[in-house]
Amino acid sequence: MADVESQLALIKRGAEELLVETELKQKLESGRPLRVKAGFDPTAPDLHLGHTVLINKLRHFQELGHHVMFLIGDFTGMIGDPTGKNATRPPLSREQIKQNAETYQDQVFKILDPTKTEICFNSTWFDTLGAAGMIKLAARHTVARMLERDDFAKRYAANQPIAIHEFLYPLCQGYDSVAMRADVELGGTDQKFNLLVGRELQKHYGQPPQCILTMPLLEGLDGINKMSKSLGNYIGIAEPPQEIFGKLMSVSDELMWRYFDLLSFRSSMDISNLKRSVEEGVNPRDIKIALAQELVARFHSQSAADKALEDFLARFQRGAMPDDMPEFTLPAGPVAHVLKQSGLVASTSEALRMIDAGGVRLDGEKIADKGLQLVAGTSVVLQVGKRKFARVTIA
Amino acid sequence: MADVESQLALIKRGAEELLVETELKQKLESGRPLRVKAGFDPTAPDLHLGHTVLINKLRHFQELGHHVMFLIGDFTGMIGDPTGKNATRPPLSREQIKQNAETYQDQVFKILDPTKTEICFNSTWFDTLGAAGMIKLAARHTVARMLERDDFAKRYAANQPIAIHEFLYPLCQGYDSVAMRADVELGGTDQKFNLLVGRELQKHYGQPPQCILTMPLLEGLDGINKMSKSLGNYIGIAEPPQEIFGKLMSVSDELMWRYFDLLSFRSSMDISNLKRSVEEGVNPRDIKIALAQELVARFHSQSAADKALEDFLARFQRGAMPDDMPEFTLPAGPVAHVLKQSGLVASTSEALRMIDAGGVRLDGEKIADKGLQLVAGTSVVLQVGKRKFARVTIA
Repeated sequence: MADVESQLALIKRGAEELLVETELKQKLESGRPLRVKAGFDPTAPDLHLGHTVLINKLRHFQELGHHVMFLIGDFTGMIGDPTGKNATRPPLSREQIKQNAETYQDQVFKILDPTKTEICFNSTWFDTLGAAGMIKLAARHTVARMLERDDFAKRYAANQPIAIHEFLYPLCQGYDSVAMRADVELGGTDQKFNLLVGRELQKHYGQPPQCILTMPLLEGLDGINKMSKSLGNYIGIAEPPQEIFGKLMSVSDELMWRYFDLLSFRSSMDISNLKRSVEEGVNPRDIKIALAQELVARFHSQSAADKALEDFLARFQRGAMPDDMPEFTLPAGPVAHVLKQSGLVASTSEALRMIDAGGVRLDGEKIADKGLQLVAGTSVVLQVGKRKFARVTIA
Repeated sequence: MADVESQLALIKRGAEELLVETELKQKLESGRPLRVKAGFDPTAPDLHLGHTVLINKLRHFQELGHHVMFLIGDFTGMIGDPTGKNATRPPLSREQIKQNAETYQDQVFKILDPTKTEICFNSTWFDTLGAAGMIKLAARHTVARMLERDDFAKRYAANQPIAIHEFLYPLCQGYDSVAMRADVELGGTDQKFNLLVGRELQKHYGQPPQCILTMPLLEGLDGINKMSKSLGNYIGIAEPPQEIFGKLMSVSDELMWRYFDLLSFRSSMDISNLKRSVEEGVNPRDIKIALAQELVARFHSQSAADKALEDFLARFQRGAMPDDMPEFTLPAGPVAHVLKQSGLVASTSEALRMIDAGGVRLDGEKIADKGLQLVAGTSVVLQVGKRKFARVTIA
């Protein structure tokens, strides 16, 4: 194992908060592999880069020789939203959760080493806890302290209802740490309260309290909001290589460094060197390419990364067209109609606007004439904006 | 079955509050036997008259032909006080609870008809509910509404801790009503909030909500505080006939009428007639005797009641001494010493004070001389106050 100081440096890289550092130091000094826990909801196995921030941190622990426990919260997943108000949280069957868990594993094992990862399901202990056990668990915390949690405090002050079972979930999460004998628990910054509940419950059950490590929420492509599917500013890890590559190339130079810290597996020293190189005149675009390649290689393969780079360079740097694009056979007519029928624009009026703005090319040449007619027997490549292409045969 | 109006009149007799009367009327009009629930703690099977107020009301329902369910809260009894702070609520074993339940039954079947009483244990449904079921149950109520309960509101305002499981207990009690399909639940006035939770849960589970009937807390012998063992102002139903009789004869005339309402099985019309007779000149003491006899007969037997009356009359009305009293053989000496050694007073100084106050008799005669010596070879009856006697042989 690496020495304690360099372990700590890697563990703290990109993290928001570590509590309690002196305790973690002691645990690391023991030399034994630490039991490192992170919990995941079994409902959303379609991961984006935002989700991987935590998983990357688990990988750091793995690289340092520690024992990673990937907890799937199937117990609460099977309950769903008991009030029935939240349609996005239906109760899941054991079978559905098993499938979701497998999809999860397919994805996270692109980051984690499967041979060093323990997958846990908390139904293992909650199925046998019983109603009496749940009451005893609830006795371990007070109403007043639970109401100190930021979101509860706000809702209570605003007279928004808080159902009583919501008070039980942090306790369940804390009890997971007891059952798993966690030395460290990782979570998003929004999880801090719940992670601290775990510390307290462990003390009550006579265990040394876990250290908690919170990771920041990753900003989305806009660099402002957190990455989320609903905001559309995300990169899904199952997206095609070209998509991942292209989206990463679109982020700001500033956000690129944030992504390096939280998403790259390069060493901190490597990243410092890259920063210095930009200060010395290297084009940040070349550094961005390195990041995009690393991530495509991680979620697809090195050859897919090489191909994505090749396509990217061909399309955006040499102005050439991509190798494959959708092909259509369409009747002759005004170019605006053909653009619409090929799906490159939503309407003919949009087509006309785009032509006006100089955003439409035919075989690589800007179209200037909005009234241009495409005649039968020809085959052309139409391009709208930078990235939309279609090959059209006029019949 | 009696007509609805006279049923209602009996049901409401002595009760604090009935919610909702129109609903109860409708239930009664259906003509079917109603399912009437009352819950009891499995920890304190040593009943006093205060406990019997509720049981008497169950008996009223039984007399009216309804189905009485005597619920023993063994589920929470087995949990005890999970915080461990309340030493008076240790977790009970299934075996202890079974024993307590039997002691309960021995006592309550002096009031209820065993053939018409269903004894229920709520572990029946809670043992199979599971931790998930408890969470779903907790989802049925909000934190804010639970904090409206009087005692919670006060403690929260005073920054006194409320453990979260305390919020689960009213829900458990309410779920009992669901599991038992209760039409009516009885409880003390302090139970009103919990009884109302039962109504709501039943609605949620698609059942007609139970009516709730709260009974007042019975005043103790002092006529001021509620009857309780710790205050010493109680009459235990297992006490000897003479004790029950004597204590009842000691209550005020005003409290006597309260006890008639809440403890006597005489009809309301009978009681009105008794009141009128007192107004017309009958000695209230004779009415009190009737109450004392009724209660001794209930908890012992008619002959025990007759005997208690006989003893009482002999002792207090004819000035005679009771048939049996403790006997001692003591050395000769000053009467104050003998009084102390016989246990009639706590100290010789108390003996001297009592003699001064004219409260000590020897063979029925007041002792005037504090220095009186009792000499060997005699046998005397010593009496302190109205009810303490001892037969002493001076050796």
